[in-house]
Amino acid sequence: MVSDTLDPDKLARACAEQMWSEDHASQVLGMKLDTVGPGTARITMTICREMVNGHGVCHGGFISTLADSAFAFACNSRGTVTVASGFDITFLESAELGDVLVADAREVALRGRSGIYDVTVRCGDTTIAEFRGRSRSLGRPILEEAR
Amino acid sequence: MVSDTLDPDKLARACAEQMWSEDHASQVLGMKLDTVGPGTARITMTICREMVNGHGVCHGGFISTLADSAFAFACNSRGTVTVASGFDITFLESAELGDVLVADAREVALRGRSGIYDVTVRCGDTTIAEFRGRSRSLGRPILEEAR
Amino acid sequence: MVSDTLDPDKLARACAEQMWSEDHASQVLGMKLDTVGPGTARITMTICREMVNGHGVCHGGFISTLADSAFAFACNSRGTVTVASGFDITFLESAELGDVLVADAREVALRGRSGIYDVTVRCGDTTIAEFRGRSRSLGRPILEEAR
Amino acid sequence: MVSDTLDPDKLARACAEQMWSEDHASQVLGMKLDTVGPGTARITMTICREMVNGHGVCHGGFISTLADSAFAFACNSRGTVTVASGFDITFLESAELGDVLVADAREVALRGRSGIYDVTVRCGDTTIAEFRGRSRSLGRPILEEAR
Repeated sequence: MVSDTLDPDKLARACAEQMWSEDHASQVLGMKLDTVGPGTARITMTICREMVNGHGVCHGGFISTLADSAFAFACNSRGTVTVASGFDITFLESAELGDVLVADAREVALRGRSGIYDVTVRCGDTTIAEFRGRSRSLGRPILEEAR
Repeated sequence: MVSDTLDPDKLARACAEQMWSEDHASQVLGMKLDTVGPGTARITMTICREMVNGHGVCHGGFISTLADSAFAFACNSRGTVTVASGFDITFLESAELGDVLVADAREVALRGRSGIYDVTVRCGDTTIAEFRGRSRSLGRPILEEAR
Repeated sequence: MVSDTLDPDKLARACAEQMWSEDHASQVLGMKLDTVGPGTARITMTICREMVNGHGVCHGGFISTLADSAFAFACNSRGTVTVASGFDITFLESAELGDVLVADAREVALRGRSGIYDVTVRCGDTTIAEFRGRSRSLGRPILEEAR
Repeated sequence: MVSDTLDPDKLARACAEQMWSEDHASQVLGMKLDTVGPGTARITMTICREMVNGHGVCHGGFISTLADSAFAFACNSRGTVTVASGFDITFLESAELGDVLVADAREVALRGRSGIYDVTVRCGDTTIAEFRGRSRSLGRPILEEAR
């Protein structure tokens, strides 16, 4: 398996490249994948006009979508196709038009095919939201066999 | 206060109209507000190309955003400005390009300024996700004084 | 398999009897299993001195334990050994010394080996807590083969 | 106010002493408060016969109760009466008769009167459960005025 011939950092980047090329949703929302490593990922997104209400406050759904994307890249970083079975998010501060949000995902626990990943969404030094994702591995590799 | 002169159903619709006119995010995603009542709301959304990955499967963030919108209309239906303090979502089935999703929100509990709202997201008879929102009222009316 | 020869109600009761006989924890806390059916269970518990603090208010952990027990009986009612993978609880009102709490569990969704069960904990007409459990079936039967 | 005359570490210990003296529930379950500091607490508990089922596996409710106690001491460590509005727990491994569980609570975020606290429950090097508590401050001091 390709996965076995790569060190963990390279494997994480190779998985992220493959996922990113297919992830229209994250691209359409203007997300940028800053870094990815074994069990971690950082994604940034700028709040644009389509994401806000009449008062300029960002819809919580887009903050959740950003965190969910960072979660997806982190939990797929070890080479196995892994899906979200669910997540919990707490909103601490509102985000506004033009804010640049940074979502940092990190692995908290892995047990068999189940995992927990925490994501903190910040704007500068302010924490906007705390997210905890629950993952479930499907057991098959992300990268195809070298041919 | 305007709120006091309306019956609960009319109040719910008046609040929804005001919120909807300002909710660019829900409109941009093609959501339609089907019904709203005291403590309830139903919103539909069709999965479009921008919401899916290369395999045609919808990003969980958009399902969460749909549920979050239904939650917002339900928890603001009683006339008081109310925000989401957080939510939990469990994904049961994946949604695909072209699927028409229906999100039904209902009030589960209210205590002081805190509330719980459950939202079920379905595609036909299939449950796609179960969402539980936590709300917090800000105490001020949604509708302004008649002048 | 024994499970196949029983109707759903009788199967639920047979599973509950077997579980109850081994569930020291629920018994020590004075819980009573009122009813059990396919996907449902009702358990009652009286708040005793050991469960309260100096002000007579019940420790949230015991309310969670009551809800968790009702969840366990409901998710094991269909004949397959099923464990809790986690739960979320929201506390709405405090419970006090002498209160009789009633926990009603019901199945919300089943998909493959995963399930969602909601439990409402009440004291009379007052909702004390709302609980949402996440279950995972282990695939083997609760009742042993008839010999 | 007494709270203003103490450094954060001494304040945390003084609050914990007052809470512990009234916390019958935690004492009855054999919990020991190891350490407490500003935003943190560590509590240990040994799984006894009353907490397990017929197979010697601990009821999830007692693991939740342990985590909930650690959460309570951590979120009350800053001198203001603070209650749990709810929590989410994920069970990763089962705990058994005789296991010594250690629950470590730490503050993740504070915003106005709301807070998030994470608790990891371990047995040796094995993580048994991950808990995330949601707190709400009531605004009044834990320690009474010196007289």
